[in-house]
Amino acid sequence: MPLLVVGSIALDSVDTPQGSRDELLGGSAVYFSYAASYFTSVRLVGAVGEDWPVEHTRLLESRRIDTRGLQVVPGGATFRWRGKYMTNMNDRETLEVHLNVLGSFDPVLPDDFRRCPFVFLANGSPAIQLKVLDQCIGPRLVVADTMDLWIRSEHENLVEVLKRVDGLVLNDSEARLLTGEENLVLAGHKVREFGPKFVVIKKGEHGAMFFSEFETYVLPAFPTSTLVDPTGAGDTFAGGMMGYLAELDAFDADSLKRAMAYGILVASFTVEDFSLDRLRQIDRRDLDLRMDKYRRMLSFDA
Amino acid sequence: MPLLVVGSIALDSVDTPQGSRDELLGGSAVYFSYAASYFTSVRLVGAVGEDWPVEHTRLLESRRIDTRGLQVVPGGATFRWRGKYMTNMNDRETLEVHLNVLGSFDPVLPDDFRRCPFVFLANGSPAIQLKVLDQCIGPRLVVADTMDLWIRSEHENLVEVLKRVDGLVLNDSEARLLTGEENLVLAGHKVREFGPKFVVIKKGEHGAMFFSEFETYVLPAFPTSTLVDPTGAGDTFAGGMMGYLAELDAFDADSLKRAMAYGILVASFTVEDFSLDRLRQIDRRDLDLRMDKYRRMLSFDA
Repeated sequence: MPLLVVGSIALDSVDTPQGSRDELLGGSAVYFSYAASYFTSVRLVGAVGEDWPVEHTRLLESRRIDTRGLQVVPGGATFRWRGKYMTNMNDRETLEVHLNVLGSFDPVLPDDFRRCPFVFLANGSPAIQLKVLDQCIGPRLVVADTMDLWIRSEHENLVEVLKRVDGLVLNDSEARLLTGEENLVLAGHKVREFGPKFVVIKKGEHGAMFFSEFETYVLPAFPTSTLVDPTGAGDTFAGGMMGYLAELDAFDADSLKRAMAYGILVASFTVEDFSLDRLRQIDRRDLDLRMDKYRRMLSFDA
Repeated sequence: MPLLVVGSIALDSVDTPQGSRDELLGGSAVYFSYAASYFTSVRLVGAVGEDWPVEHTRLLESRRIDTRGLQVVPGGATFRWRGKYMTNMNDRETLEVHLNVLGSFDPVLPDDFRRCPFVFLANGSPAIQLKVLDQCIGPRLVVADTMDLWIRSEHENLVEVLKRVDGLVLNDSEARLLTGEENLVLAGHKVREFGPKFVVIKKGEHGAMFFSEFETYVLPAFPTSTLVDPTGAGDTFAGGMMGYLAELDAFDADSLKRAMAYGILVASFTVEDFSLDRLRQIDRRDLDLRMDKYRRMLSFDA
């Protein structure tokens, strides 16, 4: 089944203990799309400026990513983010943000994108996420991401989004901020009370937790000794998860757990190099090989 | 097989977001012993003062814990620790430490303890750990714990200990301190280079990692919504792990992984109340029930 994603498209500059890079291909919708494209065809909606390198579009199109929803804003500049990761690679500092065309982004879905059965609202303002939802016709599964900025500044719109989505993906500090609850098990279920049938809390290098009415579980990250750049890990986690569900055209409990695992594994490759560099080297077979290792790691006899 | 443990015995005062308690039964060897006693008989060596409540000894003896190695120092006072947990329950501040009899503790193993096949050197100075090793005759498996204090202040003795043990258990910040390596996968293997055949890095609420020449894996903590007091979690993790290995009289790769899981589960009960209060309510069946849940949580079809 095709998968729609709407979100940010960026040129990132990052400084990590492993090195620095400027103007890298990035953004939540880009990372998500690339990760999902191992599993299914993707329909991408987002905005870029006139400075957008056309080879980035070509790269996306070389995958199963439909870029007809990519708005190139005349006279505009692409969203830019500059950040620095601390020695522990968990904490990061945002040094510069230039919203540029993202500041006035008005998502317009091409007609044939509107009936897309699987929908992911990548990180973006809840107001924009609502505009996307208003254009979708009969989606089977809608999942959203959010961040601290929107929890603080657009709480009312975010609550409205949460009533209208099936699932929410957010990180641990965001779950605590949204619920005021320190214990992540309690926080996860409190997020569910806002509306989503399931909630995924991303814990970075510590994996991800899943919450539904009947289930609470944790899956660890895949341990990697090669940690170069964590940017995009969360977005590729979501892309792997949603891509797998769309491929399967299912979202029962078993499928969701396998989808979480695929998300974790795509993210584990993402952090091994800058931007999409590591993902560009691997194919579905590499993911499945790592999946075998991951399943063995987590299994033991009674 | 019987299991020997040498370490601290304490009266703890703790302040957590869930409440405060004074003069609780605690200490690394106490937590370890109680946890291990679900699986095997334990021989405890440690020192207390004349103020030691005899009911604590009776509690330990009501389990399979041999307390003939408990030295009651005439005129001495029991080691005391007072600490405060922050809202996140991960960070804690030590408010008071009174070493008392622990300051002059000289471990003397009763004769029939010296041939104990399984040995755990709980948290204590490397000098004391070496004295214990000198008294052990032909142990099959020796595992040690350590902490930041000894890594900083008794590095040479610690290096000597690491040459003489089969396994080391330490937490994430200690592994980073000992190796100067931020990435835990690299840190774990660097610790192995000091001598131990296997290394376990405890990550608190995020579970534990295992490192041997052939294996690197992580197991998550069991998610619990009841977090009252984290004191003793690490020691009961080690107690569950070593107790299970001693029960099985094995330490092959498969046994070690199941032992890690048992350690994680005993610790998950420990934190649900103060001191040993939660562990006193459960039996081996409760551990095995939680083990079933844990294994289901981590398993999914390919």
